[in-house]
Amino acid sequence: MASNLQLNANGELRHLLSIEGLPREVLLRILDTAASFVGVTEREVKKVPLLRGKSVFNLFFEPSTRTRTTFEIAAKRLSADVINLNIAASSQTKGESLLDTVANLSAMQADLFVMRHASSGAPFLIAHHVKPHEHVINAGDGRHAHPTQGLLDLYTIRHYKKEFSNLTVAIVGDVLHSRVARSLIHGLTTLGAPEVRVIGPRTLLPTGVESLGVRSFLDMREGLKGCDVIVMLRLQSERMRGALLPSAQEFFKHYGLTPEKLALARPDAIVMHPGPMNRGVEIDSNVADGPHSVILPQVTFGIAVRMAVMSMIAES
Amino acid sequence: MASNLQLNANGELRHLLSIEGLPREVLLRILDTAASFVGVTEREVKKVPLLRGKSVFNLFFEPSTRTRTTFEIAAKRLSADVINLNIAASSQTKGESLLDTVANLSAMQADLFVMRHASSGAPFLIAHHVKPHEHVINAGDGRHAHPTQGLLDLYTIRHYKKEFSNLTVAIVGDVLHSRVARSLIHGLTTLGAPEVRVIGPRTLLPTGVESLGVRSFLDMREGLKGCDVIVMLRLQSERMRGALLPSAQEFFKHYGLTPEKLALARPDAIVMHPGPMNRGVEIDSNVADGPHSVILPQVTFGIAVRMAVMSMIAES
Amino acid sequence: MASNLQLNANGELRHLLSIEGLPREVLLRILDTAASFVGVTEREVKKVPLLRGKSVFNLFFEPSTRTRTTFEIAAKRLSADVINLNIAASSQTKGESLLDTVANLSAMQADLFVMRHASSGAPFLIAHHVKPHEHVINAGDGRHAHPTQGLLDLYTIRHYKKEFSNLTVAIVGDVLHSRVARSLIHGLTTLGAPEVRVIGPRTLLPTGVESLGVRSFLDMREGLKGCDVIVMLRLQSERMRGALLPSAQEFFKHYGLTPEKLALARPDAIVMHPGPMNRGVEIDSNVADGPHSVILPQVTFGIAVRMAVMSMIAES
Repeated sequence: MASNLQLNANGELRHLLSIEGLPREVLLRILDTAASFVGVTEREVKKVPLLRGKSVFNLFFEPSTRTRTTFEIAAKRLSADVINLNIAASSQTKGESLLDTVANLSAMQADLFVMRHASSGAPFLIAHHVKPHEHVINAGDGRHAHPTQGLLDLYTIRHYKKEFSNLTVAIVGDVLHSRVARSLIHGLTTLGAPEVRVIGPRTLLPTGVESLGVRSFLDMREGLKGCDVIVMLRLQSERMRGALLPSAQEFFKHYGLTPEKLALARPDAIVMHPGPMNRGVEIDSNVADGPHSVILPQVTFGIAVRMAVMSMIAES
Repeated sequence: MASNLQLNANGELRHLLSIEGLPREVLLRILDTAASFVGVTEREVKKVPLLRGKSVFNLFFEPSTRTRTTFEIAAKRLSADVINLNIAASSQTKGESLLDTVANLSAMQADLFVMRHASSGAPFLIAHHVKPHEHVINAGDGRHAHPTQGLLDLYTIRHYKKEFSNLTVAIVGDVLHSRVARSLIHGLTTLGAPEVRVIGPRTLLPTGVESLGVRSFLDMREGLKGCDVIVMLRLQSERMRGALLPSAQEFFKHYGLTPEKLALARPDAIVMHPGPMNRGVEIDSNVADGPHSVILPQVTFGIAVRMAVMSMIAES
Repeated sequence: MASNLQLNANGELRHLLSIEGLPREVLLRILDTAASFVGVTEREVKKVPLLRGKSVFNLFFEPSTRTRTTFEIAAKRLSADVINLNIAASSQTKGESLLDTVANLSAMQADLFVMRHASSGAPFLIAHHVKPHEHVINAGDGRHAHPTQGLLDLYTIRHYKKEFSNLTVAIVGDVLHSRVARSLIHGLTTLGAPEVRVIGPRTLLPTGVESLGVRSFLDMREGLKGCDVIVMLRLQSERMRGALLPSAQEFFKHYGLTPEKLALARPDAIVMHPGPMNRGVEIDSNVADGPHSVILPQVTFGIAVRMAVMSMIAES
């Protein structure tokens, strides 16, 4: 269902709602297109006119300066007109429904909605209702999906490892609440990574996670053995105060990535993190800033991936 | 007085402060200019260079994401540089006066101020003080006026009904507190609509409203008979909790537009609403989303009307 | 040290962190470049393509709509893409460090950071860490420096007085807490103003201020005698409620600039203020709006000075 909604009759990307359900060829086409934009962002004049005269609405029902900024930059480098809407502070408080809000913006001749919402599925609801020439990008919906983050993770892995077909990837930490983990697992599976592992305390691993085709580990040392790629997840501060974890210090002891634990992975392993990092909670600064870390390149590739997705769907 | 301030020596629009006092020809020129911009907003590249290099300041002393967004889009489609200023959060709290704030922005070489303010008359005060090449658009001042909303209402009516000379128009709900109603009544009168009605409970109709040339009705069924155009007003939620109304449910029973009440109007009647709607309070969803509703086209025309006003005053 | 960090190997401006340590020739080059931009801001199309495709990040860790707006306008008139980040509301609350925040934005391919921060020295810290092609402009750090304000003050003085070599300049009010005063004193000294005075109550003059090469006066009447330039400082409202001053009324009586006190200066003296003014506290409205006041021209020159600094460092 998601697949049908995301692709047009020619199999081209029309909305980006979830990596789940996207065919392998579409994922690869996004990564290839992103590669062409990495060059653009390194030029003196970092602009291409692909979205000139298009109106991009950043609809953030949950605040996220960081993610909103990456989409804003990507859209501006494509020469779009960008309108930032922090919706918590406006119509929603006036009791207007999500569908009415979007119908109104659509009537202003929108072309592209970038949407973050606390409710899983909200971007799907919108995609069902927009006009044929309008497009929706999910910038994070509840615990469900964060597909551009998943895509930039895939891009980063391919950049450093070239192939997925022989990789062991570990995703470590609060997998239960992570839309980043969910999106990445679907992407890795689709692109043929033979072994994907999730590592974390029992309280932070989803029950039945193995049904997604991953192996789960409670012991981080065991789980890291032989890994090519280690993806550390952010531990939300509300988790640290909650019932699921004894303390941040305890978490770091068992699941924080230290140089000593990292040494159990393959010598050329890369370390990733979606940011913002909690140094000393999920990752040690010596690792975050060390030679295995590709955390900042992830950010750079994230702009290119968002430019790729925006330009592809605008042309569909 | 407003008329003199709004027009230059050649009778061209210099500021837009209020529909009251604008001559018929000026209103028609705005509507005709807006018609030419409706086409622009439907193009692939929705930009024209009419305001290139001009600085448009959105000065919102009252928050309104929706209205601010329409002006921001209109200005960007005219290629202006747009600066959004949410003034509540800044200089005003530092004790700077309205005139000092505007004098400062003017010294930054502003071209156009779009201003919303809780005090009736604030945009007039500014228009009296700006430099000859600077322009002011009133985006809503207190209970006084909201001229671009009135103009987009007039545009919508003309679009669907072609002529004003044979129309019966009903404005329904909280007329007392509505700057939208006030602006529209002046516009309809000026353009020659022969019958304008206001419908609402006695507590929400201004005393002496008949002096504006309208007929007032307490009974909605009676007031809707034979109407060509029905303009539903938004009921502010603070009103629902106040002393002027028993309850939202009671209001809906008497003054909510239902299919059954709508059937009393002419068969080709159109239904308008400035938004955001309170479904189930002033309007039933079957009407809001039904075949008589032109509520979303109002939004689309609103962008074109604002582009028209901005480009006309910038050339004056 | 600041000097080395601010200039590249060819002695060109690379970052603007503080007027302190900038050589006379660099200051003069900035003022001369600004003069060329004053013309641009008076044109019909107030845009030049010097920063086209460059990404300017306005990083305001302290809110300041006014200063942020001047940088936003300056950058847009240079055709840059501008991203406004109000950091208090975002990553900082997620516990991310300043260096991580900037490293992330840098990974998005930033070109120029405009930064305001409550901690003195924060922009220096950033300038030490950015990549070779990235630039930092200090838009105010703690009590330390506000170099673009100092530069626009210097520009204004030179505009009206032509030469610095024969000037007596008085800086009046809360010198102790003023980064504006500090930046201006360094600039005036470097450009050869023979007499710089600070005037204020003992509690608001820094101890040992004479070591900066200025004369201090507790009696405003005495200090104003023979002055060519009077720079009034803003009295922060928190000061008025504090232990350092008896009351705003008392302050105005002794240190408020009235027509009567102004008459003690030279007949062609100019009066400046960084804004926003507290009328009736540090300055009388008759002076603020009178013929000696150049307060609004300061704002206009401030845009040109910021365009000059941005374009110079982008080319370095």
